[in-house]
Amino acid sequence: MINTLYLPELREMLERRDDPALREFCTALHPARTAEFMEGLSAAEAWSVIGHADAALREEIFGYFGHDRQSEIIETQELEGVAQLVADLAPDDRVDVLDDVHPDRVHQLLELLPADERHDILRLRLYPDGSAGAVMTTEIAKLSESLTVTDALTELGRQAEHFETIYYLYVVDATDHLRGVVSTRQLVSAMGRPETRLGELMETDVVAVNPMDDQEDVARQVAKYDLLAIPVVDRERVMVGIITHDDVIDVVREEATEDAHRSAAVAPLDTSYLKTHVLTLGWKRGIWLTILFAAAILTAGALEFYSDQLAKWEWLVWFIPLVISCGGNSGSQSATLVVTALATGDIALSDWGRVLWREILQGLLLGLFLAVIGYVAVSLIQPASSEVFPSNALVVPVTVLLVVVSGTVLGALLPLLFQRLGLDPALMSNPFVAGIIDILGIVVYMSVAQWLMS
Amino acid sequence: MINTLYLPELREMLERRDDPALREFCTALHPARTAEFMEGLSAAEAWSVIGHADAALREEIFGYFGHDRQSEIIETQELEGVAQLVADLAPDDRVDVLDDVHPDRVHQLLELLPADERHDILRLRLYPDGSAGAVMTTEIAKLSESLTVTDALTELGRQAEHFETIYYLYVVDATDHLRGVVSTRQLVSAMGRPETRLGELMETDVVAVNPMDDQEDVARQVAKYDLLAIPVVDRERVMVGIITHDDVIDVVREEATEDAHRSAAVAPLDTSYLKTHVLTLGWKRGIWLTILFAAAILTAGALEFYSDQLAKWEWLVWFIPLVISCGGNSGSQSATLVVTALATGDIALSDWGRVLWREILQGLLLGLFLAVIGYVAVSLIQPASSEVFPSNALVVPVTVLLVVVSGTVLGALLPLLFQRLGLDPALMSNPFVAGIIDILGIVVYMSVAQWLMS
Repeated sequence: MINTLYLPELREMLERRDDPALREFCTALHPARTAEFMEGLSAAEAWSVIGHADAALREEIFGYFGHDRQSEIIETQELEGVAQLVADLAPDDRVDVLDDVHPDRVHQLLELLPADERHDILRLRLYPDGSAGAVMTTEIAKLSESLTVTDALTELGRQAEHFETIYYLYVVDATDHLRGVVSTRQLVSAMGRPETRLGELMETDVVAVNPMDDQEDVARQVAKYDLLAIPVVDRERVMVGIITHDDVIDVVREEATEDAHRSAAVAPLDTSYLKTHVLTLGWKRGIWLTILFAAAILTAGALEFYSDQLAKWEWLVWFIPLVISCGGNSGSQSATLVVTALATGDIALSDWGRVLWREILQGLLLGLFLAVIGYVAVSLIQPASSEVFPSNALVVPVTVLLVVVSGTVLGALLPLLFQRLGLDPALMSNPFVAGIIDILGIVVYMSVAQWLMS
Repeated sequence: MINTLYLPELREMLERRDDPALREFCTALHPARTAEFMEGLSAAEAWSVIGHADAALREEIFGYFGHDRQSEIIETQELEGVAQLVADLAPDDRVDVLDDVHPDRVHQLLELLPADERHDILRLRLYPDGSAGAVMTTEIAKLSESLTVTDALTELGRQAEHFETIYYLYVVDATDHLRGVVSTRQLVSAMGRPETRLGELMETDVVAVNPMDDQEDVARQVAKYDLLAIPVVDRERVMVGIITHDDVIDVVREEATEDAHRSAAVAPLDTSYLKTHVLTLGWKRGIWLTILFAAAILTAGALEFYSDQLAKWEWLVWFIPLVISCGGNSGSQSATLVVTALATGDIALSDWGRVLWREILQGLLLGLFLAVIGYVAVSLIQPASSEVFPSNALVVPVTVLLVVVSGTVLGALLPLLFQRLGLDPALMSNPFVAGIIDILGIVVYMSVAQWLMS
């Protein structure tokens, strides 16, 4: 949804070159709202508007623009101004945006940046998408353990505006090895003892991650320890960056959406639903639908194989969708429960025995209950076909029980197997589990029918 | 997974009443890890161990225990000690734990608490689960706008340990109306101008939420504005609490898991997968499976209705699972895309026209592609039945196209409809969408067959 409240006024101000009014617009609101009110403007218009804010504020408002708008501005607006902006952006955001800018343009921009920033960008761009290195920022408050509380507060006062977070001060040695952490809370509490050294205040049991760690693991650590930021260190424990709480919330949300898409057999989108091109979306859905379709063709083959039996007991056909759907549904439930429990850390691979046992119980419980309902349903529908009771009436209930148990067991074990193989368990999507159980369901159904009726 | 590394040592220390060693154990590590190492102990043992920490640390370690352990300790351990602990806990965590403690015990505890804490607990307990009021904390750094930077820093130094977050100072008037916010970053940056008043420093455009707001909306606001905490105000903008970043991460993770469960037709669990009682889990799955089973019985009715047709063209049966599964799968994809896009705010109800248009396109694109594959598959499987070509060979492809389009359109519109009705769109679970499309699929299939072959 685009907020069009201020669009006419903004366009008029731009036309009249009403600089004071535009400046006022940039400063009056929270930068996120300022960005929101500009959503309807073209990239060029938005760029002119934020040109009226000072560098720090311009960078902040820009940070709240959508990703597409950001890359469009960087790609199309006047090079020198854009280079200035890129230099001001937080290191992690900068790398993120440049990822979607044409390589030639990135090259031109890099040439205009100071050497430090250029190296920083080139280094951060090396980390793969989804790694801790790709979401970390490199502007960190690093202090020496010999500093006193007063020194640290003064240093903080001087530098506060340059750092993405000042709520943890990381204490490092001369070669940047992480030695400890002091929270601003501790520092402020210690103001009464101004000569205390950071080395005495700091906590030395610091939770840290590696730049190549999966961003999902990072989010889990931050959530577990209730952190505002987590330091990123290399193998020698040299500090290379931090990941802050706001990036962690974004990671958690992004991963949740990706998992939801995977569980419905959609390859994760790179951008929002409405912005994904129809053909891209078609591709991300089509590959999975095609795989599932291919699996479903096997069901046709299986039913053809049993065609004599189906011709003999015509009423068997009526219950095909019923028996396969209850296997698919119970399988999807189990798969989702196991995938989410793995993601939140509620279960680990080593719990497979307990999971299996629980799912067998669930399968028996749910299967028996549905079998009873199935028996009633068959009794109501089947008599019309005047077959012989009672063994025939048991075909559907017995199949339902077996299929539901297979569903819960397979649904639980397949994600665990994927995890064991080092694959993402969420790839074992619900339709995929359901597809496997469809075929199994048909084989079980026909075998049970054969066994009970002949 | 339970970490058993220190269990024998801990038990030995308890037996020997080795107080210094136990004190050392409590203080040596991050409280989250201390809690982790105690997972294998009984509630009584864990309670004895943390008895060796001072009140602040005990409260912190306790905060990292699992929810079940927390309520077990409160329910079973010595009343006075527990009351002391409850008084020390953060207001939001306290209410959360007491929710699962027997009402009689809660009553006994409340009698032992100071009047302030008692009223606070009673008030917070009134907010429904999932509301902002239920996750907020009431220990907030509230300051007057006439304070200077120096006053504020001194005040902060005195109180830092009592507040859940000190990174935002909320500026209120004499009757607690929220006037503005000063970040500790701003305060620290302004240390060079110690006489500046908070009224001059503060931002007045403060994003706030209402205690009855949905926790999911709160998380969205915090993520959007990259906040560390968000104030909770009543209708008169009197400040009643704040919600901090760590609670927001928990909310986001909790909601993601709940949505995943709903999308697989499992009613959200109150606790973790392994801790949910088999019967509770069976109930949360069974109600939905039963509803879906009832819907599936309709498919049996539908097929019985078409039994003459199925007897005449026997090969039609073979493709029943195929045509209904491709509708269900494309429907699940659309439903999940729409539900996640609604949750992240990428689309709003007002976008329904664009969504519908995109899904019709997706349906045509994917449907045509699968229809072509379907044509090839039918040609390979069907000839064995020696029916007349070519119109017969078109039955499956035409059905696939129609069913996939119905799937994408219904899958997209049903969650939007639920949203419009004020219900949670995630209730429109994938199996539910698939179930509806199963029946529709059979009707479409049989109608297409009737039309093309007679």
